[in-house]
Amino acid sequence: MATLIFPINHSPLQDAEALRKAFEGWGTDEKTIISILGHRSSYQRQQIRKAYEDHYQEDLVKRLEKEITGDFEKAVYRWILEPADRDAVLAHVAIKNGRDYQVIVEIATVLSPEELLAVRRAYLKRYKHSLEEDVAAHTTGHLRQASSWGQLLVGLVSSYRYVGDDINVKLAQSEAEILHEAIKEKKLGHEEAIRILTTRSKTQLVATFNRYREAHGGSITKNLLDGSSDEFHKALYTAIRCFYDHTKHFIEQVVRNAIKKVGTDEDALTRVIVSRAEKDMKHIKEAYYKRNSVQIEQAVAKEISGDYKNFLLALLGKED
Amino acid sequence: MATLIFPINHSPLQDAEALRKAFEGWGTDEKTIISILGHRSSYQRQQIRKAYEDHYQEDLVKRLEKEITGDFEKAVYRWILEPADRDAVLAHVAIKNGRDYQVIVEIATVLSPEELLAVRRAYLKRYKHSLEEDVAAHTTGHLRQASSWGQLLVGLVSSYRYVGDDINVKLAQSEAEILHEAIKEKKLGHEEAIRILTTRSKTQLVATFNRYREAHGGSITKNLLDGSSDEFHKALYTAIRCFYDHTKHFIEQVVRNAIKKVGTDEDALTRVIVSRAEKDMKHIKEAYYKRNSVQIEQAVAKEISGDYKNFLLALLGKED
Repeated sequence: MATLIFPINHSPLQDAEALRKAFEGWGTDEKTIISILGHRSSYQRQQIRKAYEDHYQEDLVKRLEKEITGDFEKAVYRWILEPADRDAVLAHVAIKNGRDYQVIVEIATVLSPEELLAVRRAYLKRYKHSLEEDVAAHTTGHLRQASSWGQLLVGLVSSYRYVGDDINVKLAQSEAEILHEAIKEKKLGHEEAIRILTTRSKTQLVATFNRYREAHGGSITKNLLDGSSDEFHKALYTAIRCFYDHTKHFIEQVVRNAIKKVGTDEDALTRVIVSRAEKDMKHIKEAYYKRNSVQIEQAVAKEISGDYKNFLLALLGKED
Repeated sequence: MATLIFPINHSPLQDAEALRKAFEGWGTDEKTIISILGHRSSYQRQQIRKAYEDHYQEDLVKRLEKEITGDFEKAVYRWILEPADRDAVLAHVAIKNGRDYQVIVEIATVLSPEELLAVRRAYLKRYKHSLEEDVAAHTTGHLRQASSWGQLLVGLVSSYRYVGDDINVKLAQSEAEILHEAIKEKKLGHEEAIRILTTRSKTQLVATFNRYREAHGGSITKNLLDGSSDEFHKALYTAIRCFYDHTKHFIEQVVRNAIKKVGTDEDALTRVIVSRAEKDMKHIKEAYYKRNSVQIEQAVAKEISGDYKNFLLALLGKED
């Protein structure tokens, strides 16, 4: 369930006019921007962009870039894009930065196969390169030791998995053992672990992870980072957690880490809230409260301020 | 240009009725089957299947399996399927046989990115596994030495390349050198060669191959199989040839090899003719004649016989 609150009926043109008014005059009226864009569905936002462009012969996104700044601007920019396009941008930023490859693992593992495909399409359209092409060019080759890492990432973003409830129990057993060997021996068996994680259906993978737990008395991620926190192991860890339970991943790995950091990781906070507000943020909120006995809104509000804060809180379901 | 000749107007129901009549009575009337199915477009064939099923509550494909046999049956079965579904079947047969992996390389490299995606979708629907999942399970892992081979195949079938005329000349230069090193050193650099071939756009790859030829005075495939004709090198060879000029690949590698063999490779012959009759078979025919000074129909007719021969000749544009 989503946290986003939006009206069933809205007039794209009236919204465009109100935004235009907010841009003009002395200073920008951020409150209006938040009250409109923070309360429109993805489809409605696209309609507003179109109405604005048709009416004022100006790209709304470009105008927003001039009117607002900093984390607020970044959050609004991410938010206004269609989901697949937004993820394409997030992936591209991560590749260009050469860090935050966790974002790419997240996109490749949390989204459904069709959603991931839509991201690949959007990426091609925007950057005239394929997503896997750019990931591969930045992660494989030069450093031999990084080879498993690159293979895992490229395999994850290139996957188009079977979606369905069919589980092969025998396969879950044998592949749980393969993963166990791969983790135990640290160096061997990477190739098999990569094959399993990049090709099996999510349902099958969860069955395999459950089997692992039964057979070895502990979750597969439990000892994964002991002594080896290189990029490959980190990506493996994130992938497995996202397959298993992405809500938990978002709460523990992203939101908690973002808040825990000295100087808050705004990009991570923005990413989770903007990406999930229209999907399952309500569920994430409930799980967050259950885990921390604090509302996520309170936790977030303590860390950030101003328009940025107000905007994220709007997406988290705060009424104006 | 296609070689298939088909009427602009046809009645799916009349065709279905004529086929039904051909099945009934003493023996099967193969001539009618050929004259109908050998002269209908992909769309028309699907309409006939539907009309037949609606009218007789029987699957036309299943009925055909009962009525005809051998290479003729196989060819008609391949032909009647939608192109993406047919390629999914061809890929599955190749994986199950554990040989003919060249077919998979062909599908992954000759088709456009969107066509390849349609094959992956059809494969998922039919087999409840992803194509890359089955390729990976059969080619990676168990044999360590086969690892490059598996990676190459999985990368090829998982690709969703950029389509466009943009070429990065510098990249073509540097990647031509990387490929040169990889081929010269035989063992090293596989990973980089795989990365390049599985992710770059076809236009970019052709620019890289051209650059290779200029810089090293010979085509990239020229020395590729010298001394190392393992599965990896064979797949590499086929992939490069298909990217470069798939017409030449079909003529030299598939049709010529199929005919040259003691006991003709009917599966290969069927595959090329059935797959290309509605696409670029006219072009392949012309190129074949230019190369061999013999019409492809004559060459094919010499090797095979009966209904199978008549059916393939119909697809090659022979009028009844």
